[in-house]
Amino acid sequence: MPAVHKLLLEDALQDSPQTRSLLSVFEEDAGTLTDYTNQLLQSMQRVYGAQNEMALATEQLSKQLLEYEKQNFTLGKGDEEVISTLQHFAKAVEELNSLHAELATQMADRMVFPMVQFREKDLTEISTLKEIFGISSDEHEASMVKYSRLPKKRENEKLKAEIVTEVAYTRRKQHQASMQYYCALNALQYRKRVAMLEPLLGYTQAQMNFFKKGMDLVSKKMDSFLTSVSSMTQSIQAQLDSEAEAMRLSQKELLSVDDTVYMPDRDLQPVNRTLIQKAGYLNIRNKTGLVTTAWDRLYFFTQGGNLMCQPRGAVAGGMVLDLDNSSVMAVECEDRRYCFQITSPSGKTSIILQAESKKEYEEWICTLNNISRQIYLTDNPEAVAIRLNQTAIQAVTPITSFEKRLEGSPHPDRAKPGATQPSTETPKASRNPEPEDLIAPGTPIQFDIPSSF
Amino acid sequence: MPAVHKLLLEDALQDSPQTRSLLSVFEEDAGTLTDYTNQLLQSMQRVYGAQNEMALATEQLSKQLLEYEKQNFTLGKGDEEVISTLQHFAKAVEELNSLHAELATQMADRMVFPMVQFREKDLTEISTLKEIFGISSDEHEASMVKYSRLPKKRENEKLKAEIVTEVAYTRRKQHQASMQYYCALNALQYRKRVAMLEPLLGYTQAQMNFFKKGMDLVSKKMDSFLTSVSSMTQSIQAQLDSEAEAMRLSQKELLSVDDTVYMPDRDLQPVNRTLIQKAGYLNIRNKTGLVTTAWDRLYFFTQGGNLMCQPRGAVAGGMVLDLDNSSVMAVECEDRRYCFQITSPSGKTSIILQAESKKEYEEWICTLNNISRQIYLTDNPEAVAIRLNQTAIQAVTPITSFEKRLEGSPHPDRAKPGATQPSTETPKASRNPEPEDLIAPGTPIQFDIPSSF
Repeated sequence: MPAVHKLLLEDALQDSPQTRSLLSVFEEDAGTLTDYTNQLLQSMQRVYGAQNEMALATEQLSKQLLEYEKQNFTLGKGDEEVISTLQHFAKAVEELNSLHAELATQMADRMVFPMVQFREKDLTEISTLKEIFGISSDEHEASMVKYSRLPKKRENEKLKAEIVTEVAYTRRKQHQASMQYYCALNALQYRKRVAMLEPLLGYTQAQMNFFKKGMDLVSKKMDSFLTSVSSMTQSIQAQLDSEAEAMRLSQKELLSVDDTVYMPDRDLQPVNRTLIQKAGYLNIRNKTGLVTTAWDRLYFFTQGGNLMCQPRGAVAGGMVLDLDNSSVMAVECEDRRYCFQITSPSGKTSIILQAESKKEYEEWICTLNNISRQIYLTDNPEAVAIRLNQTAIQAVTPITSFEKRLEGSPHPDRAKPGATQPSTETPKASRNPEPEDLIAPGTPIQFDIPSSF
Repeated sequence: MPAVHKLLLEDALQDSPQTRSLLSVFEEDAGTLTDYTNQLLQSMQRVYGAQNEMALATEQLSKQLLEYEKQNFTLGKGDEEVISTLQHFAKAVEELNSLHAELATQMADRMVFPMVQFREKDLTEISTLKEIFGISSDEHEASMVKYSRLPKKRENEKLKAEIVTEVAYTRRKQHQASMQYYCALNALQYRKRVAMLEPLLGYTQAQMNFFKKGMDLVSKKMDSFLTSVSSMTQSIQAQLDSEAEAMRLSQKELLSVDDTVYMPDRDLQPVNRTLIQKAGYLNIRNKTGLVTTAWDRLYFFTQGGNLMCQPRGAVAGGMVLDLDNSSVMAVECEDRRYCFQITSPSGKTSIILQAESKKEYEEWICTLNNISRQIYLTDNPEAVAIRLNQTAIQAVTPITSFEKRLEGSPHPDRAKPGATQPSTETPKASRNPEPEDLIAPGTPIQFDIPSSF
């Protein structure tokens, strides 16, 4: 054990320059210690700050993992597995978070606090005592100056006694202040040797405690959980791999077709005249002003006896016309090809549509005609359709030009089209149709929209 | 295993509103996933940031602990124990720091990186494909508008063929883009289920690894070290406690003295006329101008045959006079009490000093006289001093007023003082003095200044 330098209290009264020199050595040592303490405290506070931030960060991570469940994924139906796994992780992170928070608290209590206390109590005490010592020393000096000037004359005995009392008072004060200061500086030489060790002990023990609790946390149950998560992700990855391969092959096959598939006018299949339902894109003629028109490409489909229309961005289709007993015929319109017109039985409503190809054009006219005659309500609609086949074909040939017929009529939808009515009457259905009959099999199913839409 | 919703590649070519609706559900799901991914990534980056900061903070702490040694403490001689303990702690913190740094790296590699990659690769791919899909869809629309306007006339077959080719080109492009987009969205439904799990697996495994390595670190050697540090601090604390108690008692005792101790003029001890060395505060008279003087309270001490002086703040004393054969006598000066004058043998140099009390005054004069007669060089200086005692006392009574003697002489230090020479000759030393004899035992030792001063 090395000998500790020491300020002797016995030297305080004489206050010699030698004692002051030794004192200044202690003061410089205390100053160096103060500087070092401040730097070390800064480092410790940084460690504590990082630990505290880690506690807050893991808390946020744990909460964020639980947020997954509340995300309202539109395709969330297969996510139970992910949700429960994330909840499991969230719990693990939360347990980890409580360890981090405990470590942060211990760092604050056992590392930062003792260091702050050492600075605030011991080092601040030193500087306070130094100040008091300086003041009392100055006061003693001042009283000594007065004392030294005392004259020799006998008649001033009272003044002399007063000043001697003042010297005694200030000297005792300085003596007291010196000794307190010496004591504090002597004690600091001991505190200096433990001041850093106690916080470091606290830090190290808190960290060990953290490791031990962490091991308890992970060893018990974590391994099997992680193994199952790991195999789960591998299995999903394998599913993805096989699905991706299937998609790649399918994509390759779908793209390997002849370019004619993409050509609207190169229909290789023959026209099917016996359809009782159809869907596809058509251009519809809209009047946008007194003489101006616009053609919109929209998706049309039949649903029972109705013609429905759905713009591409729309979530659901809307009814355009009740096709029952409506008349369908080819028309000439704005020099466009493949136009046809549907007119309601009353003749008050009519629309003009344009198909993409000759085959589409003929199929739409046949299909709409089949529906307008309510074939879809009969017991064997296909057979009836075939019977009507020959008759319907007449409608394909336009009789008059649409432009000519509309002359003098500003409302084309009110114009009475002069299309020929099919000569063969459709046999009326012998029974009232059941609801399920009204929707033909194979009609495009509208997507079932989740409530979050 | 829940069924995964899927976009059918077969629907891509027809591109019906129903397919678009389903697509928009997938798009919304991807959007929600992107938002959630960004939030989760933020939380993960915060955890990583905290860990990284912890690595940096422990690195700084470790370095700061090693800095202790370099602090140049002026009282550092007893610090080997503290230094070696702090080095041990620094090593422990450094090892901990390497674990923290490793954990930070693993968090970056196994948690943040896969999550960033999921965002940058998968989610960014989705938004890129969406954009391409939108552009190709618009291009197809535009070509379809041109196609729909194709006139019926036969003579335009070449134009028709061109536009049909354009439609086929844009339709194939859209088909390709759609299918790629569908494939990515379908794949995302699998990736969504593993995207979060992989980073969390990485995080948890890194954390477990950290705990395991931490346990290895602390269990091996830390306990015995901490125990020894703990007992060391307890032992130092016990030393401090007993030292503090001793100081408290000493302080109490030193302060329990009678007030007369603090009174400069109440000397209870008799004058010692046989001293051959002395130290204490005296006022010295300094000429500051032609007629003005100042008295400075300085610390004087004898060292062999020299009178030394040391101002209170000074580190070492300086020689004032060689006392050998100098004359010392009481003088009257500025109506101050207890003044005496020392004059060099040549009479060229003299100083006037003021003592604090009658006893001090007499003792200084006797002591200086003893020294001027070189008693300190004899074999038995005390005996010689006692012999001279009676003679020296004559010097105490001032013969002339200092002020009167100095009339007409502007340089008081050149004035020839008319003090009586002591009548009894000092017996010369019979031998040459050895060097150790020249410094009287008990002379105030000047503090040994460390090199850092």
